[in-house]
Amino acid sequence: MRKVNLREKFVLFSGHWTPKIVGDLNGQQVKLVKFQGSFVRHHHDAEDELFLVIQGRFRMEFRDRAVALEEGEFLIVPRGVEHRPVADEEVWVLLFEPATTLNTGNTTGALTQATLDRL
Amino acid sequence: MRKVNLREKFVLFSGHWTPKIVGDLNGQQVKLVKFQGSFVRHHHDAEDELFLVIQGRFRMEFRDRAVALEEGEFLIVPRGVEHRPVADEEVWVLLFEPATTLNTGNTTGALTQATLDRL
Repeated sequence: MRKVNLREKFVLFSGHWTPKIVGDLNGQQVKLVKFQGSFVRHHHDAEDELFLVIQGRFRMEFRDRAVALEEGEFLIVPRGVEHRPVADEEVWVLLFEPATTLNTGNTTGALTQATLDRL
Repeated sequence: MRKVNLREKFVLFSGHWTPKIVGDLNGQQVKLVKFQGSFVRHHHDAEDELFLVIQGRFRMEFRDRAVALEEGEFLIVPRGVEHRPVADEEVWVLLFEPATTLNTGNTTGALTQATLDRL
């Protein structure tokens, strides 16, 4: 049982859109990810996803609107809801979601991360 | 679907050891709580618990050791592990745990919160 320092983990990697697992509990995982640019529009059939901004800012785009997220703010995107994160500058984000969650949801492509590293 | 600003939620309440629900996903909940002083020693039979420090510091005491947690650090306490949070000064903590989790686990007493408010 070891504590995790978020900042120390974030500085260990530099890639974008590559979530890293930093915790496991109750079938869920805590993941850290850096966003920059635009992700693919997707949804998750069976998983709700929480996005908490640790450093920076981004916006979550939906079909009909967008939500701007700042440091210390989180958003839960329910299963089935199409979404696309967009970051004008690099942002550090903590994810809480089921261990089964695929980053690109119902889509697969160049950004899909089928297996994730642990930090 | 609304974003949650952690600081804005924390300033809405002042009590200690009274978790407030601020998010629901996948049968889990995000709760905010302020600790000050010593809690009761307890464990959870079936739930792992995540503690993330948002402001301040505290220590998690176990039978044989303690883990000091600072801002931006989290600890996952696995089910079955006896623990007791202790805060010399007020600390703001985010919890991520199953919706079924009772704050005092296998014990009940003055600090037990059988039902939790939502913010």
